[in-house]
Amino acid sequence: MELLKARIREEGRLEGDVLKVDSFLNHQMDVELLDAMGAEFARRFAGSPVTKILTVEASGIGIAVAAARHFGNVPVIFAKKTRSKNLDGRLLAAKVHSFTKDTDYTVQVAARYLSPADSVLILDDFLARGQALLGLLDIVRQAGARAVGCGVAIEKGFQDGGRLVRAAGVRLESLAVIAAPEKGQIRFMDV
Amino acid sequence: MELLKARIREEGRLEGDVLKVDSFLNHQMDVELLDAMGAEFARRFAGSPVTKILTVEASGIGIAVAAARHFGNVPVIFAKKTRSKNLDGRLLAAKVHSFTKDTDYTVQVAARYLSPADSVLILDDFLARGQALLGLLDIVRQAGARAVGCGVAIEKGFQDGGRLVRAAGVRLESLAVIAAPEKGQIRFMDV
Repeated sequence: MELLKARIREEGRLEGDVLKVDSFLNHQMDVELLDAMGAEFARRFAGSPVTKILTVEASGIGIAVAAARHFGNVPVIFAKKTRSKNLDGRLLAAKVHSFTKDTDYTVQVAARYLSPADSVLILDDFLARGQALLGLLDIVRQAGARAVGCGVAIEKGFQDGGRLVRAAGVRLESLAVIAAPEKGQIRFMDV
Repeated sequence: MELLKARIREEGRLEGDVLKVDSFLNHQMDVELLDAMGAEFARRFAGSPVTKILTVEASGIGIAVAAARHFGNVPVIFAKKTRSKNLDGRLLAAKVHSFTKDTDYTVQVAARYLSPADSVLILDDFLARGQALLGLLDIVRQAGARAVGCGVAIEKGFQDGGRLVRAAGVRLESLAVIAAPEKGQIRFMDV
């Protein structure tokens, strides 16, 4: 998606392998860009009925809410990473390993919000090692629902998350795929 | 706001003093309702120019993103509650006491996203003891920016947060104010 790539070129900052996009995506958010990204996801997943959008707190929420308008205002569920008083009843949970922080955490969704009748689109801001997406996919599987696919704003094409998600037989749409930085330069690639 | 109150009556669940609205507001989100709430905030704050919307992760993000469209697509900033690789440079921080969990946490915003030129609207899902809003107001003050006011979906009128925020001289708009539950019944009040 050229609009997103242009923004990454203009405002993205590399720190080693980490791409910082906090000026428009995951701390401060450009809601017009989020809306355009939502429209692009809807274009790519046109023809695949979606009944719910699933994401994970916190950075995925803005993208998911903006995208939902383009999918007929389907409900958005955000999985929680910590115990919360807003989580009760039977829970669907999956353990997720964070390579960044070298810890495990659990993503959790109240079971009553996903059913076998649901066709679920999973959205998130970043895909690197793929562990969060695989955890969300496991939750969809536990619910007996169908995963329509995954959509991410930025895939790190030099890490193995994209391969793992695709190897699981899941359609993955990444709006921008970045290659391993060379000499501090952001480079895009195709997958 | 009648639409929100009706939804709280239909789907809200009381557990003691805790009102659960996770079916449409803070776990699963009804994006049409979020949009209507955003329009209502825009109506109430019409005439007060807003340059940025500030909220705190995670439950405030959906409301803030939906509302931003009605404020001319101003950027949304969500304060972080934990250290994050998306936070760098000089930080604005405020300590917040959580009465629910009886712990303190820190809300943080990268200083470069708020300036004295900004007129900031603070949005969140719930107002109970007011500590989160007061922390966000402190961050706006530290930035030298102007706080246009605070907007919340649900104010617990039987706790002192609303009084504290108003006593700080800040305009507060609550879309639904609930009174202390009696015999397990949800009741609304005016403030």
